[in-house]
Amino acid sequence: MRLALIGGTGDIGRALALRFARDTDHEVLIGSRDPEDARAAAAGYERELAAHGFDRSIMGFVNEMAADRADIVVLAVPPYYVGDTIDAIADRLGAGTVLVSPAVGMTRDDGVVRYRPPPAGSVTELAAAHAPADVPVVGAYHNLPADRLAALDTDTEFDTLVVGDDDRAKRLVRGVTDEVAGLRAVDAGPLSNAAAVEALTPLLISIGAYDARLDDAGVVFH
Amino acid sequence: MRLALIGGTGDIGRALALRFARDTDHEVLIGSRDPEDARAAAAGYERELAAHGFDRSIMGFVNEMAADRADIVVLAVPPYYVGDTIDAIADRLGAGTVLVSPAVGMTRDDGVVRYRPPPAGSVTELAAAHAPADVPVVGAYHNLPADRLAALDTDTEFDTLVVGDDDRAKRLVRGVTDEVAGLRAVDAGPLSNAAAVEALTPLLISIGAYDARLDDAGVVFH
Repeated sequence: MRLALIGGTGDIGRALALRFARDTDHEVLIGSRDPEDARAAAAGYERELAAHGFDRSIMGFVNEMAADRADIVVLAVPPYYVGDTIDAIADRLGAGTVLVSPAVGMTRDDGVVRYRPPPAGSVTELAAAHAPADVPVVGAYHNLPADRLAALDTDTEFDTLVVGDDDRAKRLVRGVTDEVAGLRAVDAGPLSNAAAVEALTPLLISIGAYDARLDDAGVVFH
Repeated sequence: MRLALIGGTGDIGRALALRFARDTDHEVLIGSRDPEDARAAAAGYERELAAHGFDRSIMGFVNEMAADRADIVVLAVPPYYVGDTIDAIADRLGAGTVLVSPAVGMTRDDGVVRYRPPPAGSVTELAAAHAPADVPVVGAYHNLPADRLAALDTDTEFDTLVVGDDDRAKRLVRGVTDEVAGLRAVDAGPLSNAAAVEALTPLLISIGAYDARLDDAGVVFH
């Protein structure tokens, strides 16, 4: 499969690029609004993987090109860019493409990080509202500590909650996710559960601020 | 210390009673609106503990008596009874008493379990609004799978998020919680974070409905 990480120069994009490239045989593409940034990031990820003994090719493109004919397109952009980003890549998305939304709207209020969903209810549902009718949207990767996931010299074991209304799309995303060592996809129901899933992210950040043992924490359900 | 479990005949009250009695030296009291129910539940818990080799005395009382001179009073009642229950026991609460609120408001909507906070923002904040001014309220035990916690023949390892604005009260609750084997108290900040903590409960229930591996799931942060 072809996995495109739109906004793949950012924290979660980098973490997912490194893990997908290390642990799966899928093609990994980095997208950015500036193709030079995308190419530079991709080359950097290749060097990082090589330094850990993994010989992998990662390509960088402008977002529209990265999304073109991808099987899974991850919208690893800030929440306020999600709508515009989908609009920009919409005519490159085939009927078989699955859009994945990991972004979360948050504000800091007196030092406490709080969830601030958009009027659509959640960023994932905002993405679904912008996506072409034949392109299913799946929410995933909201609650992952990006820096720890990007560290290739440590073992991670995190759950990521997957929501969506299209069973095939959700299965595809769960399958790819489960190919990554130490990541486990957990089915959290329909798109209408996205707000509950996204809201866990500011809670995880809060915990890190108040409990020093849990800086940059992820979560495991059991 | 004296630990009173108001509504201690219910699921989470039973789980906490059994665990506190098994793993700590604190006095464990069961409260119910009907003192006969409280005494019957307490006797049942004693028998359950005895069957597992633990010789412990648990007393049952009407709620007001159970709360009297307790160091920690856990409001293990449904969310819509929290206000009335505090009003009923208020004049038994000393200045040293800490109230603990584990209740969560939820509704089932098309089979999906959703968080429904009260106008106060969260049940924990509702409890704080009802509590006498000198009685601090701490939110805890919202996200614990009661039946699994009550099973004395299995090892559990769950985190429970603790919120509150009174540092002494929060430390007291965290300390007692950490005395229970397999329970870990995690500081999740001020009372204003209670809604985020409570909202995790319907998400945990949802996960169990959609992912068969995770029926009656708890959570670990790491």
